[in-house]
Amino acid sequence: MEKIQETLNKIRPIDIELMKKAQARLDSLTKPPGSLGKLEEFAKKIVGITGRERPSLEKKVIFTLAGDHGVVREGVSAYPQEVTPQMVYNFLRGGAAINVLARHVGARVVVVDIGVAVDLKPQPGLVIRKIGYGTGNIAEGPAMTREEAIKAIETGIELMEAAKNEEIVGIGEMGIGNTTPSSAIIACLTGVEVKAVTGRGTGITEAQLAHKIRVIEKALEVNNPNPEDPIDVLAKVGGYEIGGLAGIVLAASAYRIPVVIDGFISTAAALIAYQLAPTVGPYLFASHKSVEIGHGITLDKMGLSPILDLSLRLGEGTGAALAMNLLEAGVKIYNEMATFEEAGVSRK
Amino acid sequence: MEKIQETLNKIRPIDIELMKKAQARLDSLTKPPGSLGKLEEFAKKIVGITGRERPSLEKKVIFTLAGDHGVVREGVSAYPQEVTPQMVYNFLRGGAAINVLARHVGARVVVVDIGVAVDLKPQPGLVIRKIGYGTGNIAEGPAMTREEAIKAIETGIELMEAAKNEEIVGIGEMGIGNTTPSSAIIACLTGVEVKAVTGRGTGITEAQLAHKIRVIEKALEVNNPNPEDPIDVLAKVGGYEIGGLAGIVLAASAYRIPVVIDGFISTAAALIAYQLAPTVGPYLFASHKSVEIGHGITLDKMGLSPILDLSLRLGEGTGAALAMNLLEAGVKIYNEMATFEEAGVSRK
Repeated sequence: MEKIQETLNKIRPIDIELMKKAQARLDSLTKPPGSLGKLEEFAKKIVGITGRERPSLEKKVIFTLAGDHGVVREGVSAYPQEVTPQMVYNFLRGGAAINVLARHVGARVVVVDIGVAVDLKPQPGLVIRKIGYGTGNIAEGPAMTREEAIKAIETGIELMEAAKNEEIVGIGEMGIGNTTPSSAIIACLTGVEVKAVTGRGTGITEAQLAHKIRVIEKALEVNNPNPEDPIDVLAKVGGYEIGGLAGIVLAASAYRIPVVIDGFISTAAALIAYQLAPTVGPYLFASHKSVEIGHGITLDKMGLSPILDLSLRLGEGTGAALAMNLLEAGVKIYNEMATFEEAGVSRK
Repeated sequence: MEKIQETLNKIRPIDIELMKKAQARLDSLTKPPGSLGKLEEFAKKIVGITGRERPSLEKKVIFTLAGDHGVVREGVSAYPQEVTPQMVYNFLRGGAAINVLARHVGARVVVVDIGVAVDLKPQPGLVIRKIGYGTGNIAEGPAMTREEAIKAIETGIELMEAAKNEEIVGIGEMGIGNTTPSSAIIACLTGVEVKAVTGRGTGITEAQLAHKIRVIEKALEVNNPNPEDPIDVLAKVGGYEIGGLAGIVLAASAYRIPVVIDGFISTAAALIAYQLAPTVGPYLFASHKSVEIGHGITLDKMGLSPILDLSLRLGEGTGAALAMNLLEAGVKIYNEMATFEEAGVSRK
């Protein structure tokens, strides 16, 4: 817990004064003031986050954390659990969606086994930081011990420490069944009823959805997580990859590195970090509006609005990759455009 | 008119059969079917447009056409007319927003003087195809003759002929005052009242907006353009750059090259092309939802929905550049992802 506390203590407010300077520069560029809308807001916020007058987002990393979930035994997912390790190998061979999109935007992908249910073959590109062989079945008891929950968050902090020279970080995941703990976390931490934050994940039927909702309600009943204690919530109804991503959010904020949240599961992870330290809020960008219901409520809670709306529901960090590219576009506008004076263009 | 007719005759429906094949490939990739939402739709549509089983969007061009507007004498814009040539020089030096964003996405920019009110200094990178020194004041009479309107469209066709090896084309513009003719065109061709399709352009006040609406109403009254004849509408209340962009849309569709519309003015240009040949509809992508009111109505008319919503209102082709990048992401997903079989991943 000491590492978590140290990290929380390091998180500072973003630099509002520098953002005013950034606004003045934005208004001096050869375009009507504000006419590049959110691109201008992105640039300004990244100046505030990084504390750099001329930030760069060239160095990009996406963390894709993989973990398994005991609750799949309840039949909550459309895919079998063996898909988790199979997809990890797909990531390592570069054939998954996140690989394609990360290459497209110039980001590197760090693939981490933080809790896959089987042993994975050690190989270049795979970071093995396994905390357990999948979580417990939350419909019957806790996902993990409190010690494991702390270790998951600390693992995320350590992963980010090793990536502290990056200029922007995206958080993504892989884990069959992981929309179920995410909905449980969000229902518990927002106080919204389960059915309002539970969707179809990778594609279950209407009947399966009704069952999934009952499983989550049971998980909350059986475990009774304390909404005032995010680590308790993570331990009782969470997942290893979710804890790891929460740790990455905390550490990135402490290092003043902007964090791009991917979809529903990453947002649940960000919410755990946010409940531990609301000071992380200004360091976050919401990449996209997920198809999963409950995503919007969670973003609202953290004061975020999604950058893209492309009907994505894949995860892995795919939405984060695309949004990073738009954030970088904003920063380049800010850095590279000519001013009215430089270009000899008349003002209003 | 012969060149226009020849071009219209060449436009074919997109390849629905090949799109079915593309859908089958999309469903074989290692992700839940449809989970990449619009990215998958983009890829499929681009297969249909290009007629290529494995299309590429590597070669990208953005046309930024510049023209002036006599109606600025009515005080409809926040900026003086001299800004048009000043911004053209800014484009040629690489300091404008479109240059920054085109570099970011790997597109080249073709800058064309199709009707700037002053002579521009010939220099590398500037294509001079001037039809007139700014249009006439539409509040008092026609913007141009019918012959000039035809020539503007034909100029666009010729510009596209010279770029027929490109794989995707974006249309953008620069011209102080050009939201005014765009609103006039849209009001005339959609039958919607002027005030519902007239916005603040580069940033006029409430009182100036009321005046702008009256000027447009007067322009439609004085000129009485025939909504059944898009060339008449272009001649009476349009602009040279708008005609040129309409020609690019027609020719790109004839060459089976996808066209990305930028903002409000480009959408007015696309609408003229669409009214000449509704067969261009399937070749179009709407890059973003402009802040200008009236944009949404016009996209609806062509059956398009915007890819991005970033509160942009700059023009130049800036939104088109950003959207191209997402279209390319979709095509890369389609081309580069591993299938379930290739990756040894289990299905549902």
